[in-house]
Amino acid sequence: MSTTPATLASVLDAGGPALARALERIETRLGEITQAHGSELAGHASGTLAAGGKRLRPVVVVLSGGEGDAVTSAAAAVELLHMATLVHDDVLDAARLRRGVPTVFAVGGRGAATATGDLLFSRAFAELASTRSAPAVQALSQASSALARGELMQRADAWSATVSADRYIERCELKTASLFAAAARLGATLGDAPDAADDLAGFGRRIGLAFQILDDVLDVSGPAERTGKHRGTDLLDGTVTLPLIIARDRDPELAGMDLAAAVTEPAQADVVCERIARTGALGVAREQALAYVAEAKAALGEIELPPDRLNALGLVADGVVERYA
Amino acid sequence: MSTTPATLASVLDAGGPALARALERIETRLGEITQAHGSELAGHASGTLAAGGKRLRPVVVVLSGGEGDAVTSAAAAVELLHMATLVHDDVLDAARLRRGVPTVFAVGGRGAATATGDLLFSRAFAELASTRSAPAVQALSQASSALARGELMQRADAWSATVSADRYIERCELKTASLFAAAARLGATLGDAPDAADDLAGFGRRIGLAFQILDDVLDVSGPAERTGKHRGTDLLDGTVTLPLIIARDRDPELAGMDLAAAVTEPAQADVVCERIARTGALGVAREQALAYVAEAKAALGEIELPPDRLNALGLVADGVVERYA
Repeated sequence: MSTTPATLASVLDAGGPALARALERIETRLGEITQAHGSELAGHASGTLAAGGKRLRPVVVVLSGGEGDAVTSAAAAVELLHMATLVHDDVLDAARLRRGVPTVFAVGGRGAATATGDLLFSRAFAELASTRSAPAVQALSQASSALARGELMQRADAWSATVSADRYIERCELKTASLFAAAARLGATLGDAPDAADDLAGFGRRIGLAFQILDDVLDVSGPAERTGKHRGTDLLDGTVTLPLIIARDRDPELAGMDLAAAVTEPAQADVVCERIARTGALGVAREQALAYVAEAKAALGEIELPPDRLNALGLVADGVVERYA
Repeated sequence: MSTTPATLASVLDAGGPALARALERIETRLGEITQAHGSELAGHASGTLAAGGKRLRPVVVVLSGGEGDAVTSAAAAVELLHMATLVHDDVLDAARLRRGVPTVFAVGGRGAATATGDLLFSRAFAELASTRSAPAVQALSQASSALARGELMQRADAWSATVSADRYIERCELKTASLFAAAARLGATLGDAPDAADDLAGFGRRIGLAFQILDDVLDVSGPAERTGKHRGTDLLDGTVTLPLIIARDRDPELAGMDLAAAVTEPAQADVVCERIARTGALGVAREQALAYVAEAKAALGEIELPPDRLNALGLVADGVVERYA
């Protein structure tokens, strides 16, 4: 779940000192927000914050909008919203570790983690409202609604034998692409590129789709050393992803399996992952993700932005692929 | 947990046709919002919506701000936020019924209910952002943060032997009064009484405090027919409320009890409730709530609003007391 340091370094390099300064301001702001809201939150959320991750969405915000306080607030807001969803996901998955650090769920329990997620949601909106831009708040709430709808769709479709590739893509739009698109749109709108907002949102959407597809491929391909999770977690929790959908088309016996009954522990998931891989589905899914990345990069050619930022955005797109390589 | 029909009827009567029209528009809007966001949400949230409740917070919004689309949006947003917290509370309490209707948790399970709560949160902010008022969004996000902080404080203080009355009131400010205060402030600001926003928020805050204290008294006094819950649920989940704090001061043996160990089932909670009642703590707590209501009503005398709305707000304050009578 992390960009290789090499890619992140190249993005930072291309973004130059302006990007580095912006990311530092965002870290400071995230720290202030969690410290400012009661010792309980600071205790619970600081672990999640410190575990950090690659701040991919804030990077997209900043590269889309440039410098300025409103862009910094938007980047912090997008990351707070992302963190909120991670904290709630960890409650639902009863996950005790994320990026090697104990989750809020592990430290505080189910109740504290649910409330911490709610608080991070609230702070995301408060942070964005500080820009005094109502359209920005609407864009974030649309994305936030989409994330929740994607989650509901995923649960409604759990273990379904009839999920189509189209429905899978629709779910990826909701649960992943919407926030990348909003990150780009918010940056552009609140920063120096309002005219490019739609095009940048389209770029964000496509890398978001690629990101989710490659994540789902990685869950089947493993190995666990790369993902921090055992292989086949999606199979175990009933999430029907593109590799499985493609593999079912190619392997009628797999299509006929009742996975809810057949895959209840990691060793069984491993066997089904192997079977999916043997159909060649991983390559097909990967090609689809690469096509989205290629579209995203091609779209950058139409966008008027300083060349260093366009260059860095291209490297962000490459980084999404490199996670998988 | 419901205003008696008599009180609600008197509020509606005092508010006149304008209030009735506004409440009807709010119901329509709430229905549209939940219908518009995917069949999953409509299915899950419509139960919560239909169960309804007394719409006390929307009533406060409308009486504070009068008619107009922005006031309607604010009222819908406040109710959506309230519903979101109820849905998440039901997940944490594993509650299967609310107001006699199956909860989202009961119908959809833990994951769907957590996502449904998140979606209701998101729609609350989207709805308020439609007013294009950034200060309004900030007011709602402050209240939303307060609710979550109150929840975190309650969990941090669970089964604590040292929670003071001051700390208890601070928690009530966060988890209940903040949303009543925001309801009044949003109505006033977006409606026809921006100059009275602070005073109306003060009114909302005080009835919120009274509401929470009386709710906590009711949990000890019972009977279950009134509350829909068995007596002593707060004792069972470790929530230290004002009646217990006062009773501990008066009954050293009670103060010395380890309630986490001593109260693990309803029959034991019943015994401790009796013991709290015998100290006279319920009367003292009730007096404190009545004092807040009296302050709230006195503050109305300072506010310039049409007399029918002031009159109706006074009846809302009375209704908070009548729940308990």
